[in-house]
Amino acid sequence: MGQCWPNPAVGCVIVKDGRVVGRGATAPGGRPHAEPQALAQAGEAARGATAYVTLEPCSHHGKTPPCAEALVKSGVARVVAPLADNDARVSGQGFAHLRKHGIEVTTGVLAEDAARDHAGFFLRNDHGRPLVTLKLANSFDGRIATATGESQWITGPEARRYVHGLRASHDAVMVGAGTARADDPALTVRGWGEVQQPVRVIVSRLIDVPLMSTLASSAREVPVWLAHGSDAASMTKRAWQSCGAKLLQCKVSGGRIDPHALLSALGKEGLTRVFCEGGGQLAASLLAADLVDELVGFTAGIAVGAEGRPGIGAMGVDRLAEAPRFELEEVRAVGGDVLHRWRRGGAASR
Amino acid sequence: MGQCWPNPAVGCVIVKDGRVVGRGATAPGGRPHAEPQALAQAGEAARGATAYVTLEPCSHHGKTPPCAEALVKSGVARVVAPLADNDARVSGQGFAHLRKHGIEVTTGVLAEDAARDHAGFFLRNDHGRPLVTLKLANSFDGRIATATGESQWITGPEARRYVHGLRASHDAVMVGAGTARADDPALTVRGWGEVQQPVRVIVSRLIDVPLMSTLASSAREVPVWLAHGSDAASMTKRAWQSCGAKLLQCKVSGGRIDPHALLSALGKEGLTRVFCEGGGQLAASLLAADLVDELVGFTAGIAVGAEGRPGIGAMGVDRLAEAPRFELEEVRAVGGDVLHRWRRGGAASR
Repeated sequence: MGQCWPNPAVGCVIVKDGRVVGRGATAPGGRPHAEPQALAQAGEAARGATAYVTLEPCSHHGKTPPCAEALVKSGVARVVAPLADNDARVSGQGFAHLRKHGIEVTTGVLAEDAARDHAGFFLRNDHGRPLVTLKLANSFDGRIATATGESQWITGPEARRYVHGLRASHDAVMVGAGTARADDPALTVRGWGEVQQPVRVIVSRLIDVPLMSTLASSAREVPVWLAHGSDAASMTKRAWQSCGAKLLQCKVSGGRIDPHALLSALGKEGLTRVFCEGGGQLAASLLAADLVDELVGFTAGIAVGAEGRPGIGAMGVDRLAEAPRFELEEVRAVGGDVLHRWRRGGAASR
Repeated sequence: MGQCWPNPAVGCVIVKDGRVVGRGATAPGGRPHAEPQALAQAGEAARGATAYVTLEPCSHHGKTPPCAEALVKSGVARVVAPLADNDARVSGQGFAHLRKHGIEVTTGVLAEDAARDHAGFFLRNDHGRPLVTLKLANSFDGRIATATGESQWITGPEARRYVHGLRASHDAVMVGAGTARADDPALTVRGWGEVQQPVRVIVSRLIDVPLMSTLASSAREVPVWLAHGSDAASMTKRAWQSCGAKLLQCKVSGGRIDPHALLSALGKEGLTRVFCEGGGQLAASLLAADLVDELVGFTAGIAVGAEGRPGIGAMGVDRLAEAPRFELEEVRAVGGDVLHRWRRGGAASR
């Protein structure tokens, strides 16, 4: 995940007589797909084998020949997959192609897990937007910085390393202009070896981020996309473009970039998984619009007090019944901090 | 714990030839002590046996004959205890009495665990104040209520049940006047069977809590103590006294009850473990004075936004280095919420 957008991250294992004879996963950049890699490993051993795939094999001639065809040619006897692809060009046709050629097809196996793996890909197909994971690393009392803005470091090195891993598993890292100004962050993945770096998305109606920033100066090495409003100054836009940044003009509502328009724009560009690291206003606007799919919290054993900066800004919630609710997925210690992961309550794709 | 203050909660097991022949724990109210109960169970079997006790047996003639004497009379051959009592009347003398009568004494076993068990008792002996546990049950973003004050229920029933258990393991439950007004709480232990109810302590300089409250109307069944300033109105004081409440006048500093004076007053009354359930101002004043020994957090999967009420009030912390730090003790899911327990960093008794 995070390495092959706009393609889904698929895995494939070929099993013959109880032994794994081939393995593949969607390659960085999205090609080759998982199945041809696994089949190439298996070679002749694929004949009569079972192919386990985490998503319906594709059936359309895109940039690569369809995987369903490759499976037929390989001579596998059976394909086990959890779910049909929801891409209109594939949905059901991959399975139909396999069955037509006498391959036994079993579906529904571990379908829920697979739906989670592919949630961003499915959301983009169905709703034109990527999955959004919101991270909040705060003090025991929900603060991300002191009143004077000091925020380094509330959480420990283990939590920070974990965050780099989360970045690597998303297609893009997204922050508001305030965070980009306050922290001058690189927003890159460090300490996880060779990875495809996520796109850095800055959300700023007026592109209110200095050109002397780390983001601007590194925009040619790792993509920087600026989601801005129609009223951003032309000079500013040109300056960022000349640094190598991509501009995405989005609708403004209530004086801010509209969160639905923002995610549509990102979906149109191919993103399936976006990791939002704040600040408070952007987080609040995504939460209030019910556009946050996963929450990742880090809680540190430090108390900062009510003057400290809140991790989530004003949301306009008067009654608890209106507040977005999430279901606990995982909780554990990471170094000296608490990690808690949540998934939005109710339907998985809205 | 919470059942025998101002006495320490001690446990004793008598073991003979690898079998437990007697068990005892400090009885509700503090008497009888653990040792005579265990010895009574063991009877003649105590002769030549080993007594394991979680604290040095007492050696002074208080309301009961000293336990060290009872152990000698019983004929036990060996006493294993983690720590010396830090009560000046006992410290080391219990062990000395046993050794003088030929009993083998082993100390230091599981001393750290025992120091935690008895932390409140030790703090009161050494510093005249009880141990303070601060509870904070809040939303993912550190809020305890919406802007309009709605707070029921942010956490789920399992977390609330756990809180009742925490109340039962403390000598007193303490809240500020704001919380007492806003929630009209009973602050009693419910759903844990027959327990000695904790004292309810209300901290309010001017005793700004309605006489029509649940706390006032139940003050004859379960103690209510009011920590107030010298400027509380006489009429208010008399009215609460006539309801059965006890008044504790405390020094005021900076317009509020001084937290050191507050805890000294509670220590003087015999409390060894106090469970503070807010509100935000009282919590902040205890934290800022470095008087919080344990933190218990519940985090719910709900986002309320920055207009919501913070669980910890203004602390005057500008730099993170000044903020009180805690070490993680435990983290796990309780129902749909996250429980995280922390212990103050550095020395255990300050």
